[in-house]
Amino acid sequence: MKFEITILGSGSALPTLTRRPSAHFVNCNERYILIDCGEGTQLQLRKYKIKFQKIEVILISHLHGDHFFGLVGLISTMNLLGRVHKLVIIGPVELEQLILPQLSVGGAFLGFELEFRPLVYPIHQVVYEDNVLDITTIPLKHRIDTHGFIIREKERLRSLNKEVFDLHGLSIADIPHIRRGFDINLENGTVIPNAELTFPSEAPKRYAYCSDTVYRENLIEILTGVDLLYHEATFLNEHKELAKKTFHTTATQVGVLAAKANVKKVVIGHFSSRYADASQHIIEVKENFEEVVAAEEGMVIRL
Amino acid sequence: MKFEITILGSGSALPTLTRRPSAHFVNCNERYILIDCGEGTQLQLRKYKIKFQKIEVILISHLHGDHFFGLVGLISTMNLLGRVHKLVIIGPVELEQLILPQLSVGGAFLGFELEFRPLVYPIHQVVYEDNVLDITTIPLKHRIDTHGFIIREKERLRSLNKEVFDLHGLSIADIPHIRRGFDINLENGTVIPNAELTFPSEAPKRYAYCSDTVYRENLIEILTGVDLLYHEATFLNEHKELAKKTFHTTATQVGVLAAKANVKKVVIGHFSSRYADASQHIIEVKENFEEVVAAEEGMVIRL
Repeated sequence: MKFEITILGSGSALPTLTRRPSAHFVNCNERYILIDCGEGTQLQLRKYKIKFQKIEVILISHLHGDHFFGLVGLISTMNLLGRVHKLVIIGPVELEQLILPQLSVGGAFLGFELEFRPLVYPIHQVVYEDNVLDITTIPLKHRIDTHGFIIREKERLRSLNKEVFDLHGLSIADIPHIRRGFDINLENGTVIPNAELTFPSEAPKRYAYCSDTVYRENLIEILTGVDLLYHEATFLNEHKELAKKTFHTTATQVGVLAAKANVKKVVIGHFSSRYADASQHIIEVKENFEEVVAAEEGMVIRL
Repeated sequence: MKFEITILGSGSALPTLTRRPSAHFVNCNERYILIDCGEGTQLQLRKYKIKFQKIEVILISHLHGDHFFGLVGLISTMNLLGRVHKLVIIGPVELEQLILPQLSVGGAFLGFELEFRPLVYPIHQVVYEDNVLDITTIPLKHRIDTHGFIIREKERLRSLNKEVFDLHGLSIADIPHIRRGFDINLENGTVIPNAELTFPSEAPKRYAYCSDTVYRENLIEILTGVDLLYHEATFLNEHKELAKKTFHTTATQVGVLAAKANVKKVVIGHFSSRYADASQHIIEVKENFEEVVAAEEGMVIRL
């Protein structure tokens, strides 16, 4: 089971040559999802050799430019490259009418279905589901309506007990079936119970994406126990008043939240361009929570 | 007198890591102008260390995404960085209503005046003028309404005759005055005629930008004698049918046009991503016109 997140942009409102605007690519068991799509995201996808035509769902947290100005260009490129299969875009209700006129004015004829699923703030519910995963919104509190997202895989496959598997001379073709938990019926009528063939699977993993938001205690319950929490840490503690005023979070606050929600790991990002690097952010988070990394373009985190 | 063009994007509809979408930066005697603004142009401006807050005019040729998807992000960044002085945007009439809603939805309050001057196709007239330059539209023929532009400087300063200047012990502070053609009155009542102090100025220069368009003989008259012609050469001659069908130009056709219009120099660009490089384009142009270069990101051409 693959569940990995690639950071495409770790910066905030002002794109720079080192920190691009927000975009995370998620591969959950070969289901490709993009979260946010700041300007230049299509080139970041190319740079990190991600097959972006395989993206099935794009989630847009809110309508500040650093989270969606790259969406129209990505759709346009997908179309020019001959995409035919549907793309689902889940985001604020106004998004469709910001994107479609930019395409139609140029006479673009979309060769694929573009399904916009509007989010009307605030909601906390499942907004996407298939056989591999589901996606739940998290109401955040920013200057404008903003949702975070939790991507949850539905199941982890059981681990193969190779010794027992070899003992019975079973076929490799049976492995997916076995790992899903089925017993095996041999030709001689013997049934091998799955419990003998496999070890229990790990619990399904969850990845939570929270950007942009002011620090909110009421996120603790929603985030409790997630395997990876991405949380914005736009500011350092010394700018906590500015954070409050602009509805952003400090690194210290992320540490407090992560500890209270008992998450497994944290990645911070959306750093204000006023800071030369994120080393002080990490120190501040670690005052309350140890398992933290700072987002960097191209970083891949596996769950 | 400085008149230089910096290529920010040499590619066509599909941005790649080596060829960005269309954008040319023009510095005409410290008047800063941007022509077209594909996605990521703001980062190209940063990369080439151009003080983009000094841009006073942005010209948008047409509403295909590779020519304007970067505009909203650039405006947003200008605003976040505290711009207060006016920005003039000259482009298709629909442009304003594509850009403004993307800013207002995020609650942006623009701290500077944004003046949209709509171009209603087809026009061939002066659309901008100040004491340094004027800008004239060129009606092109593409799949949608498209204008090219000619930027013309108003005057070149006269060259200083340093020998005569030194002979009279004149002050450096007088130079701008002298180079503009004024005589000098000495304190003793003597008048030094400007003709003694300077050599005649060069003729004012013209830069013409033509992208995107099918090959048009009727551009010859408008372009005759320009000092630099940027012309799209999306395709090679082997794809001339495709060029015609998509309303683009081949490299061979650019050579023919440049020769017929007797321009001084040509830069070609807007290359289709199907070509690995532009070497064959150059060969094709040279069949009819020698003074040609292929646009590359970061290239600076001085007139």
